[in-house]
Order: sequence, then C-alpha cells, then structure tokens
Amino acid sequence: MTQVIRTAAELREKVAAWKRSGMLVGVVPTMGALHDGHLSLARAAREQSDRVIVTVFVNPMQFNNPADLEKYPRDEAHDLALLEAEGVDVLFAPGVDEVYPDGFATTVSITGITEPLEGAFRPGHFDGVATVCSKLFGMTQAGRAFFGEKDWQQLQVVQRLVRDLNIPVRIIGCPTIREADGLAMSSRNVRLSDAHRAIAPRLHEVMQGAAARIREGLPAEAALNDARAALAEAGFGAIDYLELRTVEGLRPAADLSEPVRMLAALWLGDVRLIDNIAV
Amino acid sequence: MTQVIRTAAELREKVAAWKRSGMLVGVVPTMGALHDGHLSLARAAREQSDRVIVTVFVNPMQFNNPADLEKYPRDEAHDLALLEAEGVDVLFAPGVDEVYPDGFATTVSITGITEPLEGAFRPGHFDGVATVCSKLFGMTQAGRAFFGEKDWQQLQVVQRLVRDLNIPVRIIGCPTIREADGLAMSSRNVRLSDAHRAIAPRLHEVMQGAAARIREGLPAEAALNDARAALAEAGFGAIDYLELRTVEGLRPAADLSEPVRMLAALWLGDVRLIDNIAV
Repeated sequence: MTQVIRTAAELREKVAAWKRSGMLVGVVPTMGALHDGHLSLARAAREQSDRVIVTVFVNPMQFNNPADLEKYPRDEAHDLALLEAEGVDVLFAPGVDEVYPDGFATTVSITGITEPLEGAFRPGHFDGVATVCSKLFGMTQAGRAFFGEKDWQQLQVVQRLVRDLNIPVRIIGCPTIREADGLAMSSRNVRLSDAHRAIAPRLHEVMQGAAARIREGLPAEAALNDARAALAEAGFGAIDYLELRTVEGLRPAADLSEPVRMLAALWLGDVRLIDNIAV
Repeated sequence: MTQVIRTAAELREKVAAWKRSGMLVGVVPTMGALHDGHLSLARAAREQSDRVIVTVFVNPMQFNNPADLEKYPRDEAHDLALLEAEGVDVLFAPGVDEVYPDGFATTVSITGITEPLEGAFRPGHFDGVATVCSKLFGMTQAGRAFFGEKDWQQLQVVQRLVRDLNIPVRIIGCPTIREADGLAMSSRNVRLSDAHRAIAPRLHEVMQGAAARIREGLPAEAALNDARAALAEAGFGAIDYLELRTVEGLRPAADLSEPVRMLAALWLGDVRLIDNIAV
C-alpha cells in the first residue's frame, strides 16, 4: 500500500519513525508521468533501501519554457497505481506552494558542468534542478537517491551538488531504459505525433552508428557531421547539440583518449528529445 | 576530552555512531578566536543536545575584504582549551582545501533579507555564509545549531536558508554577550587599540539612548540622527548604517508599529564593529 503524502511536515514524521528503527531510506525524484525508466529506478531503490519514497513534483523552477511546463504530462492516479505495483512505500506529491511557499528566496547554483549542453539551451534549468534536489534531499532525508542516466548531465550536476554541499545522500545512476525500437523512455514521448513517434528511434540508431565509426577510427567531428546530416534526412528538426564530452567534467572531447559520452538534444515537431550513450 | 577532527569523512563516522545511539547532535559554527559569546552558545548546545560539535573555520568565501580575512585572529590552542573546559565533544577544524576542494562549484544564494545592511556593505558575504552553513549542516548532520543574535541579520539568513532548503536542523538564536562596559563581544575586538577600546562601548550606550528616546515618542529618524552625531563626537569613523528594521523580514521601519530592531555597523580605526538591540 503506497501512502500519498503532500506536506513536508507529514513526510518528516514518517521518515523520523523509519530512522528511529535504523532504516535506510531511498528516494527516486521524478516529475511524474511515470514510465518503465522511472520504475527501474524504483526497483533499484527497493533493492538497495529499506524504505522507498518516489517524489512526483513538476518543478516550475527548472522549466525555462512556460509552454513546456504547461504541456508537461501529469497523471497522478496512473502514477500511484504503478508505484503500488512496485511496492513503493510513499508517493510524495507536494503542491507548488508546499515546495515554494511565500517568502521562499534561496537558489543553489553550480558553475562549470552546468554551463554547456542543457545549460546553454535551458537558462536557469540546473539552478532549478539543484535547488529542488537540495530540498527533496532535506525533506526525505534519504540515504540513497536514484537518477537515470538518460539525464546524464543532470546526474553529474546532482553528484556535484551533494559532494559540494556535503549532503548525506549517495547518488546512484541507473541505465537508460529504452523502448524495443531503441527510443529512450521519456515522459515527453507521449506528446509525439504518430509520424514523429515513428521517426524518433532513428536518434539512438544514428548515435550508435556514429559511436561505432568513431571507435573504428573515424575522426569524431566527421562522424558527428554525418550523423547530423542523417538526422536531418530522417525528419528531425533543429539539433541543439550532438557532441562528444568527457565523462569526467563534461569537457569537449575530440577523440577517445579518455572516457567520453555522446550527448544529443534535438527537436521533433514541438517536442525536444535528449539522449546519450557511451562511446 | 574534546576531540579535534579535521576531515568531513572522520566527522561523518563520529556522527554516524552517535546517531545510531539515537543521540541529538548540536553544532556551534564559529570562525574561532573564541570568546564568552561563543562559549555561551556552546553551553546552550550542551544543555539542549546529547553531543556538541563546535566548528572553527575562517571561511574565505564570506570575506569580501582580503585584509579582513588576513587579519582575522586565529588561536586554535586557546580555542581548544576553552572548549575542553565547556565539555564540548568535538572541535571540527577543517582546512580550506577540505571545505572547498578542487572542483568545488556550488553557491547558495538568498535574495531579500540578504540585500540591505551587511549585504549592501559586504558584497557576496551572505552567499559565503549560506554556502558554508549548508555544508556544515551536511557535515555535522546536527539537529540543532546555535547562532548569536550579535549577528542578527546572519541569524535571519540562516533561518531562511534552513526553511527554504528543508535542512533538518533547528536554528536557535542566543542573546548577544557583552563586556561589563556594554561592548558586544566579537573576535575582532582584540584588534582595537587601547584608545579605541575605550571608545567602543559608547556604541551600545548611544544605541540604547536612541532606543529609549524612540520608545518615549521621539521620531525615529531624529533619534538616529542625534545618535549618529553622538557617535562621530565620541570618535567613531564612518557609519556604514544605523537603522531601524522590522524583526520580520528586515524591512525599513520608521516607527514602533511592529516589532523592530536597531542595527549598526561602523568603523573604529581599521576595525568594523556591528551591534543590534531590541527597541
């Protein structure tokens, strides 16, 4: 039986009782519209914690685009049913006024790794992520927090956050979950038209092809240029970025002399897709 | 026996052991050069917690003035002896590299109450305070933290911080401790020349006089103007501010229609003094 909690005060009491019994709390922060990617995180939390909290909060502070915030899918009843099935203990679903009450005045900002990629295209996004994650870690007092590698840069930002502010939570990154055709699961996928949904898996396919060619020795920039052309050909819109970055520090990478990741963000109609893979 | 700890990792182990026994940890964050004001905080922590950590860290991030940072008094051996006598369990005295290691990239900023008074005269000061306090709360995992009312605005900022980021610590403000002649205790007082030390108590005396006249019905601005003249007459240098502010939100106040505080910052030679009193 998953208990729905809406206030930080009620959550604090719940968590305090668990902690008195020496239990380790795991948290999965989400924005709801749950899919198998989220559920894989809930399962990891279930395996690695005594009690599991899934938070569902569509955080206005991390949306740079008001239309994206407005159109972000929400379906709490469905989310709750999925979490019940996973044996999640608490669905924490606070309202905006609970998270940002009158007088709220604090921002957590991170320089460096927040600046390229998503940070360059979504001003203020990572301030919103870092601030709300600080709050969720404080509210849940979780010992472990589970994030998907799908949001690779976000995962690095959250790891930087907890290290820098000495927040007593261990961040655990979990693999991206994909549809059978390779499309990375995302709550925003439901907004794709049928025609666009048919095109969408080409992103992962093209990225994997480019990664294979780079591993075979083709210069990265040539492989990425070919990939960009293939994506345009396939029917994608503007490419915000398609880049190689070092795993450590997300610095631009031109070759495989250190571990790198290929990251992409691009448009398909009015939906923005992101993905990333190891190279 | 007060144990000296210098790393977050060692402190975490110590605190984890206490927490497993269900103990409540109290922390007194300081910059060292301890005086009776700090010791009153340690005593309050002793009374209201099972275990007491006093942190000593001269936080470069909160000094806007490099000369002030350099001249800030430091005497760890003396601090340790004082804390031994108070029965403090741990003196946590990390180095700068322990608090801000390579790659550190995070800032906690608060708008509103950080902007007037000290915030106006010490750019970046409260970012440094909020950031280091976030870190110290994370490192100590304290349930209670004790701050002096001497730094009234800082106390409000820290209260805002823990409310806004849902940090699970209760902030406890403790009264300003004064010398017999009324001078508010401060680590910087040791830097006053004998002549300036003789003048310094006039600050509290003049503020109390002004507060009494305001309570008797004199318009606040007239009373504050007279006080400014009296301070100049007494030999003080530039007055950064001498103001009435609301207790709630530190808004400018012109009268006693809601609870107010009188706050001052001014120079005596090359030492900057601050003080505040209820009106």
